[in-house]
Amino acid sequence: LKLEITRQEYKRRTSIVLDKMKELGLDAFVFWNNTSVFYLCGFSFIPTERPACMILTKHGNKIMYVPRLEVEHATQNQEVSETISYPEYPGAIHPMENLAKAITGMGLATAHLGSDASGYSSTKGYRGPGLTEVLPSVKLTLLPYLVEEIRVIKSSEEIAFIRESARWGNLAHSLLQKYSLPGYLENEVSLRATLETTKAMVATLGDSYNPKVSTGLDPHVGFRGQIGPNSALPHAIDINAVLQPGDNLVTYACPRIGGYTSELERTMFVGEPGPEQRKYFGFMKEIQETAFDKIRPGKPCSDVDKAVREVYEKHGLWDYWRHHTGHALGLLNHELPFFDSGDHSVMRPGMVFSVEPGIFVPGLGGFRHSDTVLVTETGMEMLTYYPRDLERLICR
Amino acid sequence: LKLEITRQEYKRRTSIVLDKMKELGLDAFVFWNNTSVFYLCGFSFIPTERPACMILTKHGNKIMYVPRLEVEHATQNQEVSETISYPEYPGAIHPMENLAKAITGMGLATAHLGSDASGYSSTKGYRGPGLTEVLPSVKLTLLPYLVEEIRVIKSSEEIAFIRESARWGNLAHSLLQKYSLPGYLENEVSLRATLETTKAMVATLGDSYNPKVSTGLDPHVGFRGQIGPNSALPHAIDINAVLQPGDNLVTYACPRIGGYTSELERTMFVGEPGPEQRKYFGFMKEIQETAFDKIRPGKPCSDVDKAVREVYEKHGLWDYWRHHTGHALGLLNHELPFFDSGDHSVMRPGMVFSVEPGIFVPGLGGFRHSDTVLVTETGMEMLTYYPRDLERLICR
Repeated sequence: LKLEITRQEYKRRTSIVLDKMKELGLDAFVFWNNTSVFYLCGFSFIPTERPACMILTKHGNKIMYVPRLEVEHATQNQEVSETISYPEYPGAIHPMENLAKAITGMGLATAHLGSDASGYSSTKGYRGPGLTEVLPSVKLTLLPYLVEEIRVIKSSEEIAFIRESARWGNLAHSLLQKYSLPGYLENEVSLRATLETTKAMVATLGDSYNPKVSTGLDPHVGFRGQIGPNSALPHAIDINAVLQPGDNLVTYACPRIGGYTSELERTMFVGEPGPEQRKYFGFMKEIQETAFDKIRPGKPCSDVDKAVREVYEKHGLWDYWRHHTGHALGLLNHELPFFDSGDHSVMRPGMVFSVEPGIFVPGLGGFRHSDTVLVTETGMEMLTYYPRDLERLICR
Repeated sequence: LKLEITRQEYKRRTSIVLDKMKELGLDAFVFWNNTSVFYLCGFSFIPTERPACMILTKHGNKIMYVPRLEVEHATQNQEVSETISYPEYPGAIHPMENLAKAITGMGLATAHLGSDASGYSSTKGYRGPGLTEVLPSVKLTLLPYLVEEIRVIKSSEEIAFIRESARWGNLAHSLLQKYSLPGYLENEVSLRATLETTKAMVATLGDSYNPKVSTGLDPHVGFRGQIGPNSALPHAIDINAVLQPGDNLVTYACPRIGGYTSELERTMFVGEPGPEQRKYFGFMKEIQETAFDKIRPGKPCSDVDKAVREVYEKHGLWDYWRHHTGHALGLLNHELPFFDSGDHSVMRPGMVFSVEPGIFVPGLGGFRHSDTVLVTETGMEMLTYYPRDLERLICR
């Protein structure tokens, strides 16, 4: 089993960027965004105070500029043509000055460069000048979203990874449900499911299984504080709750495969739900199905959210509305475009979205399923497949 | 037991900012940096495509501007004076336009504002204009590091949290060592230690235990891929390695308490280490002790790193040098200033640093302890206290 992006795929991605560079007359492009670097060469690093970037020349060379501590790590990667390093941050010479020297050494001191940002930025203690401050003769064109826009359409290799992620998300979620019993701590349930899933993934996928990016403990599966009434907060944070009979649970299971994620979320109940819980669960399911029905290529993303909003309207649910219907995903857990009434991007085959309209009832709890869907030539395909009906989501 | 930042402490922090604002004649300050928001009002949110910020008025009011989905979450927090929300991103009206209306509604459309950034930024699909584009009559002064610089000196409450974090880091690391046996998967060991530590923390600290910030599964304890020869990469990434007899291990244990972290890292061995491993371990320990000896208030941070560099020189270890001696930490795992030969910031009582010079031998492995130390009036105090000697770091 091979869970690696092929060299042809890297070549395909790179050639889209090179075409754009040619069109704009750029001699090289400096990528500061670490997701873009990973997308173009498969190198993932932990961002800190130390600047790092990839320089893509118009000839297609990929030059990593990294702190000394990342040299061996960057060089392991066969997509990287060359690695240039500086000792440390802040160091005797600022890393941006060293970068200016390196770029000058490439004959690019007066070139037309593209970049996704004016320079490195980090909240982890970094301060420094922008590219044009250290290279005053460079002509700089900022294109912050160049790679983000290419990432919108997933290739067959990417879809295969997201599909594989959804498989393991299903296992992780089954285990989460199995261990969601009264009296257990939130993180006790999450960690048991995480541990068993990890062991199954490694035993099944062997050496080919590697999350590829630093995500802390992967696969992530759990509740993120969405337990009982606290689940009425769509972006709740761990509260170390103990599961109680009758609790609403809102879950997530999003294992990484080769850097890619899928998104599976379910509303579950600890034991038998009450009539109010059944009612809102039913509305939520109806709203999500309304969304599925509206997903088809050639139509604007906003169509999906608008149809969903009509169901909130019909059932008088506006007090319980908190967020739009969904977002694209892939290397990041949220990517553009969005299933939002204000996002008129056209759905195209190869786009992958979460579909997760929710109902959040203060004092009672949250009701949200999230499924990952692929836009196809004719409509959509569900990539996640965990049961969605209430009876099978009661934890007993 | 109370593990909450007091209102007096929030008041103290806020008054430092207000004084600075007064000095500069600012009518209000817009904070986009979510660590700064958390520092000033204790509200932690998950950054996505949806902009969020806190507006601090010169009168000390803290107004949260958030998407609809965060309203109840923000309002829970008693430090927040007021919550203003917009429906969604991108929505019918861009959230930055709504923010401009809100700021205009506060009578600040032609005011002198400070901000830590020109606007919201995110890699998760957000695009939008800067503050001055939506508020053209505002005078904007950018102060990106205002709160970061205040955070450098930790208060007694912060030090108490970091100390508490170090206690649980010690437990987590003891369990990690206990389970680090040949034949076990990297994440199997990490997750067992994480699970037991979580249960002990909740049972001991009760409802007062809350990581406060979204960090995925906390407490974090593990190896991050630093197993066997791969530990020669200081910023390795999980590889799902199976522990083998003779492996070098480089660990970490950094539980969050009230949002604060400490940093404990150790070099361990799976069974009896060989003579090469003993030799480099000895050098590493000598280098770390050299650093401890140099930490005292009134001296520049660079002194510590310079002394450390002399030991690399003395033993001919430059081939194995990869990074500076350490970094400050607190709310983030890396903060300024740095124990770096180029950082001449003066050490002051209340600063908290990691001390972690390392030796990284390709093909053999990494050798690094990291301890968290507090700069005191007279020298330093170790906050982490896990054994540092080789014999007690052999996993049997």
